[in-house]
Amino acid sequence: MSAALDRLAVHTITTKPWTLAEAADRYARRGIGGISVWVEAIEGMTATAARRIVDDAGLRVPALVRGGFFCDPSESERNRRIDRNRELIATAAELGAEMLVLVVGATPGTPLDRQRGWVSDGIEALLPEAQAAGVKLAIEPLHPMYAADKSCINRIAEARHICQRLDHASVGVAVDVYHVWWDPDLELEITRLGETRTLFAFHLCDWRVPTRDMLNDRALMGDGCIDLAGITAAVRLAGFDGWDEVEIFSEEHWREDQDQFLDRIVERYRLLESRHG
Amino acid sequence: MSAALDRLAVHTITTKPWTLAEAADRYARRGIGGISVWVEAIEGMTATAARRIVDDAGLRVPALVRGGFFCDPSESERNRRIDRNRELIATAAELGAEMLVLVVGATPGTPLDRQRGWVSDGIEALLPEAQAAGVKLAIEPLHPMYAADKSCINRIAEARHICQRLDHASVGVAVDVYHVWWDPDLELEITRLGETRTLFAFHLCDWRVPTRDMLNDRALMGDGCIDLAGITAAVRLAGFDGWDEVEIFSEEHWREDQDQFLDRIVERYRLLESRHG
Repeated sequence: MSAALDRLAVHTITTKPWTLAEAADRYARRGIGGISVWVEAIEGMTATAARRIVDDAGLRVPALVRGGFFCDPSESERNRRIDRNRELIATAAELGAEMLVLVVGATPGTPLDRQRGWVSDGIEALLPEAQAAGVKLAIEPLHPMYAADKSCINRIAEARHICQRLDHASVGVAVDVYHVWWDPDLELEITRLGETRTLFAFHLCDWRVPTRDMLNDRALMGDGCIDLAGITAAVRLAGFDGWDEVEIFSEEHWREDQDQFLDRIVERYRLLESRHG
Repeated sequence: MSAALDRLAVHTITTKPWTLAEAADRYARRGIGGISVWVEAIEGMTATAARRIVDDAGLRVPALVRGGFFCDPSESERNRRIDRNRELIATAAELGAEMLVLVVGATPGTPLDRQRGWVSDGIEALLPEAQAAGVKLAIEPLHPMYAADKSCINRIAEARHICQRLDHASVGVAVDVYHVWWDPDLELEITRLGETRTLFAFHLCDWRVPTRDMLNDRALMGDGCIDLAGITAAVRLAGFDGWDEVEIFSEEHWREDQDQFLDRIVERYRLLESRHG
């Protein structure tokens, strides 16, 4: 049975109460193939030590999460943030992560299109390091409800435009169902990402109805309203053969027994795989 | 000075603690030209009685707010809702309202594009009554964070598509800055609405940073991150000469002295007018 979990990865934030070692152990015991590591999960630890933990558990690392945050009115601050991303690329390489996920940032008061220019410039500046390190950069569009202060890229289309402008094999898009499920252009945009080989990551969770908190009320797959089977089918049809990454921020789920929660994640994932496949 | 408020209208929900009579009196005393009436504000009152209140205050009524809610998996329920909208069109006419604002509804578990078909069918069914009553129908796209259970139309583009399909002078779009400010196609879509004479309404408030509640945390113009001067300029450039309607839902502002709050609304509106004009 565990073969079907080969392409499943879980983000450490999903089981936030666990240390990296606990998470790696519990994921591996269930046959989960990957662990996407949040920067917060390796604070106070060297990347080498973190890598030893995931290697010893036999896990692979789809992504280091999260870099980006390119947007600030001050140019020197923007440069500082680019430098911070250089450090994260180095960390990702040491960790053996395939990619660095970029939450691009936003700052209130500057037109969003101008901010997207900063994002494009910031990523462009990182290309030499990313290529040399063999770390891909995945732009993650965030839901429009985060447009004020977290991400000036709120649809796949705007992420794709940056990929097209930079036209570099190291730059692509992370599609998280939570952020894009409502987009009338979703299927079309997934197809386009497939055609341009820029579909780098696929993140799973669900949209709770009602959503009680804008940040930490994501649902387990199947507990919300997103057409996960449909989106997963579209992603497969676009030729995506990477990881299915479960990324759930939820105060409610963090309060639960994390072992039981992880069991349900695996169960819902298997159900999803059986539905769309 | 009050001449500049001729095209300003305030939604009764903005000053929710006031009765209709209190709101009409206070708005009129400041020289505000219009009052958009929420259904909740005239509960337990005949439309004739409500009309007398606003007429006596010398106010005009841009809109009755809100009809719509067309989306339900059950056909008989959808028909019941269409009937409810027929009643609202009659109420709007009795009230002397220029339009009925449509929040189109959404129901979790049905693909959004299918739901948009229900919306189009529902509005189509209302066209004879709307035309006969001389009441315009304004589709209001709601922010994507409401796509699960409040509105399957989340960008101006989808509202425009329905207008194009129905191609009827009674159907247009209500543009509320709160819902659409983040849209990369915003300016283009406003221009298109202008060209097709389907820009029926313009609603003002602001997006608070951070937003603490998904429903009732809207900000006063100038207290948030929306480029109100830019959007207002785009709306004017598109040929819009209708009402500027202030619609703010805010637990914080409802707790304040409503007279002082209304004074600040007027002050911020004048500032906005001086900036974009």
